Amino acid sequence: MDEINEAIKKFQKELNGGTSALVLLGVLDKATSPMYGYQIAKLIEAQTEDVDIMKQGALYPVLRSLEATGLLESEVEPSVAGPPRRYYKITESGRQTLAKWIEIWQQTRELVDAVLQGGSHD
Amino acid sequence: MDEINEAIKKFQKELNGGTSALVLLGVLDKATSPMYGYQIAKLIEAQTEDVDIMKQGALYPVLRSLEATGLLESEVEPSVAGPPRRYYKITESGRQTLAKWIEIWQQTRELVDAVLQGGSHD
Repeated sequence: MDEINEAIKKFQKELNGGTSALVLLGVLDKATSPMYGYQIAKLIEAQTEDVDIMKQGALYPVLRSLEATGLLESEVEPSVAGPPRRYYKITESGRQTLAKWIEIWQQTRELVDAVLQGGSHD
Repeated sequence: MDEINEAIKKFQKELNGGTSALVLLGVLDKATSPMYGYQIAKLIEAQTEDVDIMKQGALYPVLRSLEATGLLESEVEPSVAGPPRRYYKITESGRQTLAKWIEIWQQTRELVDAVLQGGSHD
């Protein structure tokens, strides 16, 4: 069973590698104002029954990476209670990139679903 | 534009990392007899308009990796014309793993599509 569990974890990790950036950019593209990490995490949680798909702690490195490559920008603002918060918004590069990512996502999704739903063959 | 092109390539690569193994396992799960690399590549090509999604050369390392982790097994057989061919088939571990991968794929797909199709928010 160990090799199966390993293979399952590896797949989840690889799939998340691509999709987490897509989801974050997608959320921030639709945001009407800059959002901070916890807000984004709550919004994603509300859209999925499986809390393991994108754990809150996993969002932060992806947000930083998206900012480092110029797809997001951020500003730190003081909060009424607690420590200051970093608010993220999508950049123009981010929007252009997202449009391409969505195309790639849709093509990949169609291929995967076609293969998984296809009949038997040889 | 360079940062956008880089970000697009990186996304494609990461998304393929997870989905290529899923597609290969899915194809071999439905195969009625063992298949060799070129056969698998042709079958995948027939299901997608975008030839870039999974280039033929990219399949071989994934097939080898799936075999190394016990999800596939293979046998080399002589071919009538040309060099011998390596035929792959799915193992019992491979079938169990595929069932889990499909669950993960479906949950991820639903989350991504929910986020991309959702309305604006703050």
